[in-house]
Order: sequence, then C-alpha cells, then structure tokens
Amino acid sequence: MIGVFDSGVGGMTVAKAIEDLCPQLPLIYFGDLARSPYGSKSSEVITTCCCRNIDFLIQQGATVVVIACNSAAATAAETLRRQYTLPIIDVVTATVEKAAMASTAGRIGIIGTRATIRSKIYEARLTTVRPACRIASQACPLLVPLVEEDWLGKQETKMILRRYLYPLHQHQIDTLILGCTHYPLLGDLIQARIGKKVRLVDSSAEAARHLKEFLDKNPEIGSNMTEHERQSRFFVSDSTGPVQRLADRIFGRPIYLEKVDV
Amino acid sequence: MIGVFDSGVGGMTVAKAIEDLCPQLPLIYFGDLARSPYGSKSSEVITTCCCRNIDFLIQQGATVVVIACNSAAATAAETLRRQYTLPIIDVVTATVEKAAMASTAGRIGIIGTRATIRSKIYEARLTTVRPACRIASQACPLLVPLVEEDWLGKQETKMILRRYLYPLHQHQIDTLILGCTHYPLLGDLIQARIGKKVRLVDSSAEAARHLKEFLDKNPEIGSNMTEHERQSRFFVSDSTGPVQRLADRIFGRPIYLEKVDV
Repeated sequence: MIGVFDSGVGGMTVAKAIEDLCPQLPLIYFGDLARSPYGSKSSEVITTCCCRNIDFLIQQGATVVVIACNSAAATAAETLRRQYTLPIIDVVTATVEKAAMASTAGRIGIIGTRATIRSKIYEARLTTVRPACRIASQACPLLVPLVEEDWLGKQETKMILRRYLYPLHQHQIDTLILGCTHYPLLGDLIQARIGKKVRLVDSSAEAARHLKEFLDKNPEIGSNMTEHERQSRFFVSDSTGPVQRLADRIFGRPIYLEKVDV
Repeated sequence: MIGVFDSGVGGMTVAKAIEDLCPQLPLIYFGDLARSPYGSKSSEVITTCCCRNIDFLIQQGATVVVIACNSAAATAAETLRRQYTLPIIDVVTATVEKAAMASTAGRIGIIGTRATIRSKIYEARLTTVRPACRIASQACPLLVPLVEEDWLGKQETKMILRRYLYPLHQHQIDTLILGCTHYPLLGDLIQARIGKKVRLVDSSAEAARHLKEFLDKNPEIGSNMTEHERQSRFFVSDSTGPVQRLADRIFGRPIYLEKVDV
C-alpha cells in the first residue's frame, strides 16, 4: 500500500494528483490535524511528528511513504530516510527536478511556509542540479490559514498574495515553485498576480509524477495488495467542519475521514 | 506557585496582566507551541493537550492553574475541574462576570476562535448571569495568525477586522468580549472599527483580576514559596523566531523561553 501523510488536508492535493495519475492505486492517507500546522514549527518538532505518522502508516500496511508536506519534506526527509528502510518519496525532490528543467532563464522563485523557506532546501538542491540559476524565496505563512478558511476569492487574499509575490516579481523570476501542498488551490490567483509568463511548478503534481515513476520501476510494490486493501482510506488525528469541507472540495466528492489517536 | 498555560504565546497577555496586578507573584508559564493553535481543533484534542499541560505545571510546583486560553477554557475547563483537585482559574468565568456588569443595554458581542465560538460557553454563561441580554458572536479564525505574523498595522488586517466586526456592528452591541488572549494586541484597531461607544472587555485583564481576588481570599497559596521559586519561568514545547519576538513584545523586555518536551 502507498502511505501518504501531511500535517493536515493540504497533502490531499497530492493524494488527488496520485489518484488522477494512477486511478487503480489505493492509498492510506494520514493528516496530522491534532498537531497541524507544521509550517510554523521547528524542525525537531516536525521530525518527531513525522516519525509518529510513518509508524502509523506502516502499521496500516504501507510499504512506500509519500511525504505530502513541504515543511516535513524540507526539514525531516533526510533524517527519516536514515531511520526507516521503506522507500520514502517526498514533494521536494520531485519538484526540484521539474523546476530546474522548466526554467528558461534560470531565475526561479519559491514560496512556502516558514519552515520550508528557513530550511533553504530548495536553494541547496536547485544549485546542485543547475549551478547557474538565481533563486529568490518568500515565506508566505498566511496562505495556509487563508486556504483553510476558504477565503480563496476574497479581496484580502488577493492583497496578501500581491504583497508576498511582489519581491519575486522584482527578481524577474521565470519559474515559481508552489512549495506547499495548500498552494495549488491558489494556483489561478497566483498566476494572475505573478504574470502569465511565469511558469508555476506545482509540488503536489510533481510528487504524484515521481511516485508513478518509482512504481513503474518497482512494479512488485503496487501489485501485492489484498482485496481488503483495494480502497483508499483517509485517517486524521482530529476532525472539524472546515477540514471536512476542504477535503470534499479537493476531491470533488464526499471523503470519509476516520479519526484516530496517534 | 501559580501555573499559567496557553496553546502558545497569546496567554502571555494574561501572564503580563498578572505581573502588572501582582508584581511580587512569580509564575510558571507553559506555551504548548508544538501543538498550537488550539482554536481550530476539536474539544477532545484540546482536552488531551490541557491535561498534559496541567500535569507539567504541577510537576513544576504549581498549586493553582490559570487557563490563559479561551479555546481551552471554553471547551475543557469543566472536565479539567472534575479531573484535578487544585484550583483552576479560567479566562471565561472572569470575563463573563465583567461583561454582564459592564453592558448598559445588555447587547453583548463576542469574538473568538472557532473552538470558543462553537462551544457557545459565553452565551450560556451570560444568559445565566443576565437572562435578558442579547448576544451576537463571531468566530475570527484569521486574527491569531495575523497577530503571530506581527501584521498589526497592515491594511489587510484592518480589512479583515472590519469584515469580522461588521455583523456585530449591525447588532448594535454596546459591549464586546475579546474572547481570545491574542486579541488585546489588536485592542486599538478593534475599538476604532467597532466604535468608541462600545466597551471592550479584555479576557486577559479579567483573568488576572480573578486570580488576584482568589489569592486575596486564599493568602496561604501565594505565601509558601521557596526562594528558588521566587522567579517567573517561561516554558514552551517548541520555539521559533516569531514566537520569541512576540513574547518579548508582550512583556516589553527579553523573555527567556525554556524549551521542554511535554
């Protein structure tokens, strides 16, 4: 089984992208809503949470894990790979590959949570793959609460986006990494404010693509599922109304969230 | 010792109000930043967190506990009082008393997190104390992130406040309860938008006043402290730059935050 986790429901944009790309593949999703958001927390705390999440997914039968949270991937993925033997796919690695290839002039912008931007992981990885590129990054800590409040169409959201994107616009970026799995929900608004010529790289879609490549190379992993397992399940460590609505919206259908203590 | 806890640093406005009112009284503060915010979480999860927080404060020598978080007080205080024998002071009880007395026409507004507003505790308590009053409440989930981002003076914050306060303005309230310990930092902005005639009731100041009354009636509690204990200490379950800055700002001096695993 494929295990996918995030601090909350943002990672469901990754789960949905996986579903679109590999419709036959059932998932076990875990959203750590009792401890969300991760983006404002320290790497230490995020790493502790990730270990708990992976232990839970393994317990539920996961044999591959997708870290569907940029804050977790940026701060904890390396530690987690040393600690666990199962394959770990993460949103950052896939996204870096794509952005480095997509950028025409090598001027790449990154937006993400404080934890992701503070880690400087995108800068480090991008300059390894494409040493001559110039990178500008911007923490956008208010975007996750705005998405979770469903304030997508509101004037304040547009103003806040403009404020966050302005420095990147000044850097004349040609490619922008949406370095948080909540941000695909703001894709159109971001595109309208950063300009049509800037190519957006969506970390959720890239993580799904990366998983698919991995499974194509390792077909045994997707094939040994029992009948019982052939259905996606969505677990959360806490559940409230707004979260349920966001989950339903991401998938475009009612999603049953099973509450568990982790 | 007096133990004070909150989901994060908002409760430090209560700790500061206690310091102003009882300068000789050392505190043990605990901010549960590894799990913050509480305001978007369910009562179950909030209650579990509160038990851990109180156990930690007792371990550190607390003999009275102040719940300096409206979301926690609103959803968990009654359960906690059944579970613990030590006295528990909470922000809600003190605030209700004051608001019921302060209101001239009995038209009272309440702003708070989703958890606080969903609990309807202010409505229930107010109508017990003052049955004829008319109450209007409004969840303001974006205010905590805006305060934590230090966006107090920004245009977007003013617009968002106006949007949240508009329905209360329509209800012609004469008194407004600031039902979250982050909100005193927005006091002037709120007053300017709701109108000068509306009396603001600050739950942080009221909790401090309530504690002082309790200690005046029970002088033995404040008096049996050892020399070692005669200094306030601030513990947090996680620490990051913005949190440190907010703590220093609330107290107007550098605050040493001790990180602990709880």
